[in-house]
Amino acid sequence: MSLSRLAYLDCNAGAPARPEVVAAMAEVLAEAGNPSSVHGPGRRARARLEEARGAVALAVGARAEDVVFTSGGTEANNLALRGCGRRRLLVSAVEHPSVREAAPDAEIIPVDGDGVVDLAALERLLAADGSPALVSVMLANNETGGIQPVAEVARIAHSFGALVHCDAAQALGKMSVSLSGLCVDFLTLSAHKLAGPAGIGALVVSETVTNLAPILRGGGQERRRRAGSENLAGAVGFGVAVRLAAGNGAEVGRMKELRDRLETAVLARVPGAVVVAGRAPRLDNTSCVALPGVPSQVQVMALDLANVAVSAGSACSSGKVGESAVLRAMGLDKAVSGSAIRVSLGWCSVAEDVEMFLSAWCDLARRKGFEVRDAAEAA
Amino acid sequence: MSLSRLAYLDCNAGAPARPEVVAAMAEVLAEAGNPSSVHGPGRRARARLEEARGAVALAVGARAEDVVFTSGGTEANNLALRGCGRRRLLVSAVEHPSVREAAPDAEIIPVDGDGVVDLAALERLLAADGSPALVSVMLANNETGGIQPVAEVARIAHSFGALVHCDAAQALGKMSVSLSGLCVDFLTLSAHKLAGPAGIGALVVSETVTNLAPILRGGGQERRRRAGSENLAGAVGFGVAVRLAAGNGAEVGRMKELRDRLETAVLARVPGAVVVAGRAPRLDNTSCVALPGVPSQVQVMALDLANVAVSAGSACSSGKVGESAVLRAMGLDKAVSGSAIRVSLGWCSVAEDVEMFLSAWCDLARRKGFEVRDAAEAA
Repeated sequence: MSLSRLAYLDCNAGAPARPEVVAAMAEVLAEAGNPSSVHGPGRRARARLEEARGAVALAVGARAEDVVFTSGGTEANNLALRGCGRRRLLVSAVEHPSVREAAPDAEIIPVDGDGVVDLAALERLLAADGSPALVSVMLANNETGGIQPVAEVARIAHSFGALVHCDAAQALGKMSVSLSGLCVDFLTLSAHKLAGPAGIGALVVSETVTNLAPILRGGGQERRRRAGSENLAGAVGFGVAVRLAAGNGAEVGRMKELRDRLETAVLARVPGAVVVAGRAPRLDNTSCVALPGVPSQVQVMALDLANVAVSAGSACSSGKVGESAVLRAMGLDKAVSGSAIRVSLGWCSVAEDVEMFLSAWCDLARRKGFEVRDAAEAA
Repeated sequence: MSLSRLAYLDCNAGAPARPEVVAAMAEVLAEAGNPSSVHGPGRRARARLEEARGAVALAVGARAEDVVFTSGGTEANNLALRGCGRRRLLVSAVEHPSVREAAPDAEIIPVDGDGVVDLAALERLLAADGSPALVSVMLANNETGGIQPVAEVARIAHSFGALVHCDAAQALGKMSVSLSGLCVDFLTLSAHKLAGPAGIGALVVSETVTNLAPILRGGGQERRRRAGSENLAGAVGFGVAVRLAAGNGAEVGRMKELRDRLETAVLARVPGAVVVAGRAPRLDNTSCVALPGVPSQVQVMALDLANVAVSAGSACSSGKVGESAVLRAMGLDKAVSGSAIRVSLGWCSVAEDVEMFLSAWCDLARRKGFEVRDAAEAA
């Protein structure tokens, strides 16, 4: 393999856009027309926007009018938590920073060692206080890929009259995501985790929700739920990305095969390594592996020198180096939580990427004094 | 001229992106890398983002670190007005809906018949109440193109200890826009008015501002002033668009020539027509013309049938049909304010567009019983 080849294994931080997405966006960018204008070019832009909205709605079993385009998952999470009208907020301990910081005073629903929310604890929290609440639990975790029992969360929350928000930004395209199947009131989606463009996402609002206060105020766009000239090219790219993802079962299977091969090799070649939440339900593209005692950032940087791109925790905490809050909430030993990295595959990942990762990571483990078996011995 | 040719004269609602913008965005969309990731692809994405930030800063005489990328002008206006920490807000009577609705309880600074803010009234308002205020006055009006004496507004406001915000979304690329020249504390910019993409804008925050509370909370992006994965392709497109606009003095001159030709012909051929604020300082690309007694929407639709795209008021009031709030605030006779349309030119506009407009609009005026002189007679 060539030294200049890049193994990009950080697709949970954002996958490169698919060529079909780029082509559709380039076409619409070059056209005149604001979707809110009444003339011909405006109506054509509106038709493109609504086609994209319909594609996103279809992908999650919602109605087109339920989809509020936003500038991304962060805005969608902020809109749900701050626009829902509920002052009592309960969020899981492993939510994305955009949920945690949108609701700094929220009560925290604890998780178990695999990062799965404690349903009994949720029930106790809700029973302890009768005021109208919103419960926010993500569908799949960005760091571990861990999948939450969201339908069960919704059943419990609704039985106490609470609304339910689910951040499905990381899940969309990698597993089935359905507004009605999950029985939630709000669903956050993001395009750039799905090989669409960054800068566009959506909050899907169930028809059960009668009121949503906009965060961005001004024009009447998005049925007065989100002001601002629509990011038409972004929405079109999002629409193309969800349509392509709808038929990508084989692609997800291929990612799972690569991911499983990677984890099997990691454990076979470095007996001291740990696969975090490896036996819990989780996304097929994500692996969280730890080399106890070797700080995550050291691994990220060593891999980077070998042209392998992975991450320590979420990309959203730019500049912050430290233990992952998600892994800490799971109660992992600090030697593990401080030495975990995230390997996340996407549509562009191939076997050679996994080989490059294994080669560089095993080299590092050997340098750090770990017992490392060679590939033939481990097989 | 071919019947299928489109005369797009609604560039204030959004101009088509320039080919160079589209090409730069397509390139970056296809690349892997989140600007907040620490690995190679992340650092390359970060470098592209910062290059774009530098281009935007340079265009308005600011420092790169002053530029906060947002999802557009609406978000930038919301961020300035709601994040500035001042509870007393004063906004001009002709501001964009995203300023008006972000500050629904603001005191209104009146304007004169040309739409220019009444500086004496501003001074009286500020003198009447000593509490810390923010004054928001746009640089150029989206409907009339009218230019405000923003530096003078800032001088007065600062003398009372007020902060000053200026929405320059419509002005950028059509006139000089300088943070230090205008002496303002906050400056709103938008890319899609400038032949960049929709979905990206910026709030430029002067170093005089020590505190800005984010609207979108979560990750540490944009120096903690705006959370959310960065719209990298949008920012890159914005950067290319401002760089191209920096050298477009000749292009603006060409627009002015076309716009002036249009207005001269309008007044010469239809003696009953009115050019709104025609003698006030205004943008070189914008014309607001009225056919008294003929509702704006009737004109927009008649022109649309002739493949000429213009607007009645701002595109942001989608679905709302009625008199323009801007023209009403200028105290125009209702027969004029209810029958005004906006013709706005851009980089893509050519003489044939103006001819198509004149031909269709004079036909309509004739059908509505106006005296219409033929082109030779009017010349």
